[in-house]
Amino acid sequence: MPDKLPEIIEELTIANRILGYEGVIDAFGHVSIRHPGDPGRYLLSRSRSPALVEPDDILEYTLDSEPVKPPTTRPYSERVIHGCIYQARSDVIAVCHHHAPAVLPFCIAGAPIMPVFHLGAAIGAETPFWDQRDEFGDTNLLVVKPEEGRSLARALGPHSVVLMRRHGATVVGHGLKDLVLRSIFLCQNADYQLRAQMLGTPQPLHPGEIEAANIFNPPRAGVDRAWEYYCARLKAAGGWPPKATAKAVRGKSAKRGSLAPRPAAKKKRRR
Amino acid sequence: MPDKLPEIIEELTIANRILGYEGVIDAFGHVSIRHPGDPGRYLLSRSRSPALVEPDDILEYTLDSEPVKPPTTRPYSERVIHGCIYQARSDVIAVCHHHAPAVLPFCIAGAPIMPVFHLGAAIGAETPFWDQRDEFGDTNLLVVKPEEGRSLARALGPHSVVLMRRHGATVVGHGLKDLVLRSIFLCQNADYQLRAQMLGTPQPLHPGEIEAANIFNPPRAGVDRAWEYYCARLKAAGGWPPKATAKAVRGKSAKRGSLAPRPAAKKKRRR
Amino acid sequence: MPDKLPEIIEELTIANRILGYEGVIDAFGHVSIRHPGDPGRYLLSRSRSPALVEPDDILEYTLDSEPVKPPTTRPYSERVIHGCIYQARSDVIAVCHHHAPAVLPFCIAGAPIMPVFHLGAAIGAETPFWDQRDEFGDTNLLVVKPEEGRSLARALGPHSVVLMRRHGATVVGHGLKDLVLRSIFLCQNADYQLRAQMLGTPQPLHPGEIEAANIFNPPRAGVDRAWEYYCARLKAAGGWPPKATAKAVRGKSAKRGSLAPRPAAKKKRRR
Amino acid sequence: MPDKLPEIIEELTIANRILGYEGVIDAFGHVSIRHPGDPGRYLLSRSRSPALVEPDDILEYTLDSEPVKPPTTRPYSERVIHGCIYQARSDVIAVCHHHAPAVLPFCIAGAPIMPVFHLGAAIGAETPFWDQRDEFGDTNLLVVKPEEGRSLARALGPHSVVLMRRHGATVVGHGLKDLVLRSIFLCQNADYQLRAQMLGTPQPLHPGEIEAANIFNPPRAGVDRAWEYYCARLKAAGGWPPKATAKAVRGKSAKRGSLAPRPAAKKKRRR
Repeated sequence: MPDKLPEIIEELTIANRILGYEGVIDAFGHVSIRHPGDPGRYLLSRSRSPALVEPDDILEYTLDSEPVKPPTTRPYSERVIHGCIYQARSDVIAVCHHHAPAVLPFCIAGAPIMPVFHLGAAIGAETPFWDQRDEFGDTNLLVVKPEEGRSLARALGPHSVVLMRRHGATVVGHGLKDLVLRSIFLCQNADYQLRAQMLGTPQPLHPGEIEAANIFNPPRAGVDRAWEYYCARLKAAGGWPPKATAKAVRGKSAKRGSLAPRPAAKKKRRR
Repeated sequence: MPDKLPEIIEELTIANRILGYEGVIDAFGHVSIRHPGDPGRYLLSRSRSPALVEPDDILEYTLDSEPVKPPTTRPYSERVIHGCIYQARSDVIAVCHHHAPAVLPFCIAGAPIMPVFHLGAAIGAETPFWDQRDEFGDTNLLVVKPEEGRSLARALGPHSVVLMRRHGATVVGHGLKDLVLRSIFLCQNADYQLRAQMLGTPQPLHPGEIEAANIFNPPRAGVDRAWEYYCARLKAAGGWPPKATAKAVRGKSAKRGSLAPRPAAKKKRRR
Repeated sequence: MPDKLPEIIEELTIANRILGYEGVIDAFGHVSIRHPGDPGRYLLSRSRSPALVEPDDILEYTLDSEPVKPPTTRPYSERVIHGCIYQARSDVIAVCHHHAPAVLPFCIAGAPIMPVFHLGAAIGAETPFWDQRDEFGDTNLLVVKPEEGRSLARALGPHSVVLMRRHGATVVGHGLKDLVLRSIFLCQNADYQLRAQMLGTPQPLHPGEIEAANIFNPPRAGVDRAWEYYCARLKAAGGWPPKATAKAVRGKSAKRGSLAPRPAAKKKRRR
Repeated sequence: MPDKLPEIIEELTIANRILGYEGVIDAFGHVSIRHPGDPGRYLLSRSRSPALVEPDDILEYTLDSEPVKPPTTRPYSERVIHGCIYQARSDVIAVCHHHAPAVLPFCIAGAPIMPVFHLGAAIGAETPFWDQRDEFGDTNLLVVKPEEGRSLARALGPHSVVLMRRHGATVVGHGLKDLVLRSIFLCQNADYQLRAQMLGTPQPLHPGEIEAANIFNPPRAGVDRAWEYYCARLKAAGGWPPKATAKAVRGKSAKRGSLAPRPAAKKKRRR
């Protein structure tokens, strides 16, 4: 099992970057996976934009969202979203929290997202709302306290997506690929639903259609095909493997808050 | 005739990739052409995102959608769309099935798309709807059974586009270039029609205009010009010819479900 | 004067490509300039997407839209738009005909575009409509006959933009840079106006504001600044200078209708 | 202190280019910072698109917007926006004036932008409107006279954003990074608010939420994370460090108003 870990960490890094490249996540948001060798732990990057995450950024947490090793870098402040959902839902293997532009109008208006096309079936029949205000009054809208994380997990219930008022969404999956695809299809569904509303009154798929059209049902041929596609796009755009560029940016911004050209960097450009 | 086949396969590959690059097709959807030497067969990629299709991916099918040679790779599950239309419509040379973002809102709302500008005439006067539910009840919305394919072909009738409720569209052409352009113009027309609706009540072209403005009428100067344009865009974006990159992605994902950098790949990057 | 011609042709080529890159023009549309040495002639590319135009593509026409030299390539079928406007408007130095996505919804709905922000003043107080149907009944909506061109020029009148129902727009300028910027600002204005309509009832600038805010008034500092910006974007995107790539595409598509990789092309890629 | 200046100038250049790359600013708009060693001065580029600004373009101005050294290049005509705000608001360290596409529909319709999601809290509870017409009648809508700048500063008052009717917005920050992020979040907020309006009636965050969710509150972890993200995107897109390309463009356009390929440039391409 331990030799499987580097592979899982690499796949988690790719998942982060795909969601960054496909516009689900920008500077903010985060993606985790349950530890492959210990269901009482999960893996999550240090505080960093998912689009830039590298394997070395991945940290290990207990389900109480405590770092397993004393951290030398800053953790995500909202990591309890992940820990509390892994605690409440033993079936969940991967979690993504994001503020996708396609989803935000629904979170702001409080309008429900419902599956309106066949791939939208991946989000399930219901995507419940959670309003942090209901239990916690006026907050900074970040989910940072364990009780906030538990409240969110309760709102998620047995579903695959929970919409967070004035904030974003949290999506779960039975695997990392499922999570990535569900997050992307949620955005497509939201976009199409909003525009369909300009033409008429969109109706959800029938319950029988939602169950039958679930892309995560065996034999899952569509999952492999979509994963290949999104990986290829990421790679073609230079988003994988991680570049010296990205490292240089991190190094510099940490040290001097700037992107100043340096002799070495200049040299590279010139080749 | 046999020496014409590699050229046709190459053109089919380019058609796949153009429709991928222009945003008509993403991970899903597929494009086929009738076999140039045998009208009782058609050519279609193995199950793969059209944006990634390579000449070696193209398989040969009978019009019953049976592979001519025992396949070593997975075929598209919805290939009956192609076979059933080639059976029903001897005039059809090429078929594309897609879920374009511009078209989906109409498929969801059940609102008809009508030609609203001169290039939109390419879609014809009428784009009928097909609802899988009408004949088959609650399904996974995929067209996988021969009777589903035949039902869709009946709904298409003599037209060039059939809209599939909660699913997407299927477009046909008297040639591959015509198919590609019709698919793109359908998306443009849908986008403009939706936004025109925010400003007033769009009216379709007159029947006489639809007939006169058909870009596929001789001398077809516009077809050549547009084909050059879309080919050049694809090439400038690195989408043609197929790259080692794409192959590496396929190889890896097949073997290990990941995009891990390998010594060879790293070496290439460094050059 | 004759030594000024290559420079003008180069600038015309850049104008074509900027309008292509900025999304004003796609496969279709065209851009011309009055001949710098002879006001009775104009310069316009052979029939080709503006995004791909190269200096060698530029042809010389009389104002009757007859080629000055016997053409060896296909001319634009709608070139009378240019000739008829140069005949009717001695002040006009450059003409662009396009089908920009931002403008089409207005042409379809018949909703007027009016200057709604300071840069929009570049389009002038009024952008009249022309409906080919009014004089010519059901046509293919292309402006190919001299009488159609003259009718369009009459509708344009003394204005800078004429909107063509179910078709697109024609924009004129007192110089090539002015034409390019006016075409771009028309699109921005249309986009903002349409979305402002979702928030309230947009009002046009006051006549005094339209006159004062005209970016083409001396000292025209904004014109130089914007021109530098759009040129730099084009160059950074690889759109200038013209590439062997583009030539190869043309050569191939002319000869074999395909983009097949060839030994030489492959070699280049490998470097 | 003087040795800090090159670093500040570099950071200002990066801020310009990020706002260009992220679509807040295009050919027009400008970004300044108060002089780190003298609160009675500010730093601002010569008249140039922010996306192209280089360190050598940065000029020094008094708060009366007079150049400290006799300028050899053209200054921005609207620089009084910066000077008048620095005079009126001693707490302001950085100013950006822009015409972002997401914001313009609100400026045109006169519809207020309000913080509707957690990151939107960065714009503050209120974004007042300023209409140049109220005090100055019909103008070219540019803020060029000191009294216009002072009027705008009064409308801004103690807020962070002022919306300018039929024109754009001016944003201020207590630091350059804050300014950049606030400008970007303003655009996101405007976009989400407009689309939320299609689904229901968006409500602003509660005052307590606006205060608590301010990303600029200590410990400002989100600021560092977002800054790293936007810097990395700029660098990956080739926008930093400045390229010879950009310089060549400037040189050429200054000399001949064109982008003609030259022997040297051609040579480079051929490598």
